[in-house]
Amino acid sequence: MIKITLPDGSVKEFAKETTPMDVALSISEGLARNVISASFNSTTVETSTPLTTDGSLVLYTWNNDEGKKAFWHSTSHVMAQALEEMYPGIKLTIGPAIDNGFYYDVDFGDKKITDADFKKIEDRVLEISREKHEFKLRSVSKADALALYKDNEFKTELIENLEDGTITFCDHSTFTDLCRGGHIPNTGIIKAMKILSVAGAYWRGNEKNKQLTRVYGISFPKQKDLTEYLHLLEEAKKRDHRKLGKELELFHFSQRVGQGLPLWLPKGAALRDRLEQFLKKAQKKAGYEQVVTPHIGQKELYVTSGHYAKYGADSFQPIHTPAEGEEFLLKPMNCPHHCEIYNARPWSYKDLPKRYAEFGTVYRYEQSGELHGLTRVRGFTQDDAHIFCTPDQLDAEFKNVIDLVLYVFGSLGFENFTAQVSVRDLDTPEKYIGSVENWEKAENAIISAAKDKGLNYVVEAGEAAFYGPKLDFMVKDALGRSWQLGTIQVDYNLPERFELTYKGSDNELHRPVMIHRAPFGSMERFIAILLEHTGGNFPIWLMPEQAIILSLSEKYEKYAEKVLNLLENHEIRALIDNRNETIGKKIREAETQKYPFMLIIGEDEEKNGTISVRRHGDDGKSNETMTIDAFAEIVTEEINKTLKQF
Amino acid sequence: MIKITLPDGSVKEFAKETTPMDVALSISEGLARNVISASFNSTTVETSTPLTTDGSLVLYTWNNDEGKKAFWHSTSHVMAQALEEMYPGIKLTIGPAIDNGFYYDVDFGDKKITDADFKKIEDRVLEISREKHEFKLRSVSKADALALYKDNEFKTELIENLEDGTITFCDHSTFTDLCRGGHIPNTGIIKAMKILSVAGAYWRGNEKNKQLTRVYGISFPKQKDLTEYLHLLEEAKKRDHRKLGKELELFHFSQRVGQGLPLWLPKGAALRDRLEQFLKKAQKKAGYEQVVTPHIGQKELYVTSGHYAKYGADSFQPIHTPAEGEEFLLKPMNCPHHCEIYNARPWSYKDLPKRYAEFGTVYRYEQSGELHGLTRVRGFTQDDAHIFCTPDQLDAEFKNVIDLVLYVFGSLGFENFTAQVSVRDLDTPEKYIGSVENWEKAENAIISAAKDKGLNYVVEAGEAAFYGPKLDFMVKDALGRSWQLGTIQVDYNLPERFELTYKGSDNELHRPVMIHRAPFGSMERFIAILLEHTGGNFPIWLMPEQAIILSLSEKYEKYAEKVLNLLENHEIRALIDNRNETIGKKIREAETQKYPFMLIIGEDEEKNGTISVRRHGDDGKSNETMTIDAFAEIVTEEINKTLKQF
Repeated sequence: MIKITLPDGSVKEFAKETTPMDVALSISEGLARNVISASFNSTTVETSTPLTTDGSLVLYTWNNDEGKKAFWHSTSHVMAQALEEMYPGIKLTIGPAIDNGFYYDVDFGDKKITDADFKKIEDRVLEISREKHEFKLRSVSKADALALYKDNEFKTELIENLEDGTITFCDHSTFTDLCRGGHIPNTGIIKAMKILSVAGAYWRGNEKNKQLTRVYGISFPKQKDLTEYLHLLEEAKKRDHRKLGKELELFHFSQRVGQGLPLWLPKGAALRDRLEQFLKKAQKKAGYEQVVTPHIGQKELYVTSGHYAKYGADSFQPIHTPAEGEEFLLKPMNCPHHCEIYNARPWSYKDLPKRYAEFGTVYRYEQSGELHGLTRVRGFTQDDAHIFCTPDQLDAEFKNVIDLVLYVFGSLGFENFTAQVSVRDLDTPEKYIGSVENWEKAENAIISAAKDKGLNYVVEAGEAAFYGPKLDFMVKDALGRSWQLGTIQVDYNLPERFELTYKGSDNELHRPVMIHRAPFGSMERFIAILLEHTGGNFPIWLMPEQAIILSLSEKYEKYAEKVLNLLENHEIRALIDNRNETIGKKIREAETQKYPFMLIIGEDEEKNGTISVRRHGDDGKSNETMTIDAFAEIVTEEINKTLKQF
Repeated sequence: MIKITLPDGSVKEFAKETTPMDVALSISEGLARNVISASFNSTTVETSTPLTTDGSLVLYTWNNDEGKKAFWHSTSHVMAQALEEMYPGIKLTIGPAIDNGFYYDVDFGDKKITDADFKKIEDRVLEISREKHEFKLRSVSKADALALYKDNEFKTELIENLEDGTITFCDHSTFTDLCRGGHIPNTGIIKAMKILSVAGAYWRGNEKNKQLTRVYGISFPKQKDLTEYLHLLEEAKKRDHRKLGKELELFHFSQRVGQGLPLWLPKGAALRDRLEQFLKKAQKKAGYEQVVTPHIGQKELYVTSGHYAKYGADSFQPIHTPAEGEEFLLKPMNCPHHCEIYNARPWSYKDLPKRYAEFGTVYRYEQSGELHGLTRVRGFTQDDAHIFCTPDQLDAEFKNVIDLVLYVFGSLGFENFTAQVSVRDLDTPEKYIGSVENWEKAENAIISAAKDKGLNYVVEAGEAAFYGPKLDFMVKDALGRSWQLGTIQVDYNLPERFELTYKGSDNELHRPVMIHRAPFGSMERFIAILLEHTGGNFPIWLMPEQAIILSLSEKYEKYAEKVLNLLENHEIRALIDNRNETIGKKIREAETQKYPFMLIIGEDEEKNGTISVRRHGDDGKSNETMTIDAFAEIVTEEINKTLKQF
């Protein structure tokens, strides 16, 4: 008999050679139907693998990431089988699961796969799947493995790097592949499958190697899931911030200025400014003070902070001066500068907390291949702030910061989020700077604040930064994708390194504690996420222009100006389209530009002092004619719906 | 006979050997009384030098810089005489005039000059002066000159570097000095003299040489002028922006961050922000659009713009990347970035002008010895904008910019200014980029705008930038010092280099014209000047806090809060000093911080719902008790007095 420990802590005895599927069956038939993969003592096993020792067993279903991984990896076997059948002589290499689906890298030789083939391949994959083939793992000797793949230099290379005795093949149907395991019980549960794209990929990611064809696919246990996924994919494409950024004329990348260095066009700069003013206003209420610091600092500054030792070699390299032998660095973060501001004068405990905020632009080198629109750039503006407080104030300050972050999320329509508390990995204390006692204090402060504020949070060991534990918010956007937004970090390290002090009530000098925080994270990334979350239809308080006045013809110019003035009196931001164009064209263009309201004016409106109000996205059938005062009330109502009180 | 040409172009005949003083006398006795130096054919001569050829003569009085120079240089001779008498055996070196006064570098040997000696030296200088000694220049042979100075290695070194036949000595009273000339007629007009300071100075400015003592002095033709000068000096010391910046907690320099890189403390950052918002608001009305661009750009960008060829070697050196071999530069100006924003899409003549504005922080290397507070820094934020327009729009745009600059000056209390139009030096066309035709167009546009706006302007040949002509404003501050502020520059060059185009009404592509402009110049330098101009008493609309509420004791905290709320409703920025301190101390500290109004509250005020208003700088005798509404009216009135309408 062997003892099997389940995730809930319960321990059950089973006969030796019991399989994970047997264990699932012993719990419930329902579970057994849904189990698609398993891990034993933290190692992936097949659901059919006989267990021979005591150990911990976890059973996975489609609802677990591990389950999906097995599902997609198994589908890649079936797709490989279909490809081999349809393109005899091709050479298979590797076929892993990825975050969304799987791929298989194939050397097609003189053959070629095209979009037109996708349907045939998908059909064949589903045909094989319906035959409910079991995946069976078997050990093979290195010699046998090499013999099977004697014509495939890629698999040969893989096998040669494996130790004899650890090599396994996986069989299903008529197909065999070199494989470590981690499959679903049988192909029968693959009910929907789609080839998403093909792309070039170098063998082992090295551009000196042969270029292979990477076939991307995804599969689901229900046809409905695939339909939904493809819809989301389509929607995500429409909302791609790079596409919207161009259409809405928000930002632009110039090859001459440099990749990863966005230029903010007038409308984008106005949007940034509005976001900044929104946060500045809340921060002012919360007792923050704005500061301004330079974008460079002496190398010595970052040697003091410890950042140079940690990141120097991978960053933008030092800036030398023509004379005097000085060395400067582009600032990768604002904290060292804020520490020096704190150090500009002595402080008493009565002066604390000091909360220094700055929309500080920082520069960090990223390889060009890693750059992506506004989400991965080389220069970005953090909505940064550093709170310097006494240890006694830490709990309260941390809670205040959480309040601010929740206010930001609420006002920008992010309703769906969880929090992650990142703490040390207790097994690798050498990775962290600072005393164990301080780490414990800080970690406890964060967890207590998260609890107190009723956050839905998890604690992740080993995810802390080298200088302190932190709390990150994971926000789900309208398409269900998760984004990390709004970091709050406790830091006992920089106060030490910069020798920050305050005079306590005991008249002695003490070290303050520092909190780093950025509700947006960076303006660039946040705007990208906001664009993809809202599809460009920002909350109305944030729109650079809340309405556009569309005149039926040029002769209503004067009235258009009058309406604009009245709107300005109501603090409604608007502009006029008085071009000599058809109203149809004006509406279409205003729709593309996502103005929340189109105010159409012609003879009747001028005569009656009214406007005809059409909402963005409407078909025009529910246009309403009203006074400017009535319209102003509608706008105020809309603003109050989204912009929360702080 | 010789022909003498005077500055007004008139030519008169005089006997050979006529002196400049004779010429002055021939014009008027009054002029002769006031002439203190002269130049003949652009070379400095004595007023007693016999003229032997035809030529152009300029006569200088105290009102000319040249006259002051001769006056101060002559005084340095008299001071040297006094020093030699009082400290026998000292070695004199050089004694030139400088911008404000003169100095003499002296090797005092084992003797020592101290502050206590100053009065005695000054008295002796005036005693000698009253004796009305004439300054007489005479030629000496190199051998005789070396003989006279055989014990003075400094003068010996100077003489050895001179050619025999060109060496002159200047005699007055019992004193002789090696001297090229340029003196006043006699010592009698030196009526007031002051030794300002002594400092160490290396012989010939080289720290490997002997250290000498530099004695700084100044002199005037009237005692009243000296008194005024010393008062201004005292006032300037009090208003030194570095001193005020520290007292008002506006900015701070950290050695760790780097010299010339100011850190803006909360109050300074708020001041900057207020100035920025002030200008942004006016710029919005004037049709500018804000943009945001990164602080670095690829080296290639500046090669394209031509800045790299011009400044590259003397600037912060390129930033390399760890991989990919890219090279970036800290941006020394924003124009190349704005050109790339213009290039982000095609334009029609109907879209122009485009006016891109940015508070753009730029970095320029300055040697550490050149750095000075906020007026000479290594990183500064320009209130930059670039206007892209058609050649037809140039005149109107230039005038609009002048309007904006005048609005800025008016609102900030700079009433006293002149303008300088900087045009090409026609003799050195190789120094300028761009066609002659374009230069002429641009120069004419500027001069016509300056005329049209009724500016008090001068045209300076050879002062233009290499890429275009410009208009600078020279502003006089409250102490009568001149500052260059507010540059407007036409540029035909960058549009060419960046291949900027627009489609004209003829459907062909054309080059736009560019205007660079910055009313403040830079935030750093402008704030420095504003601090010295106002002594920290900014116009009330600009003050970070317009009033401070001083409670007579802590028990009026609630009422203080109520007053603050009421002030906020009136959009008056205020704060509370509710510390447990005496009202006297609170007032003293509020005076140092330059709050325009102190609002004192106690029992009476709480009971009656009033405040007792004391103005900054008052003695408290004219305090007035009033309601908050009444006070708000006073503030509004004060604001309207300074903040102009745009």
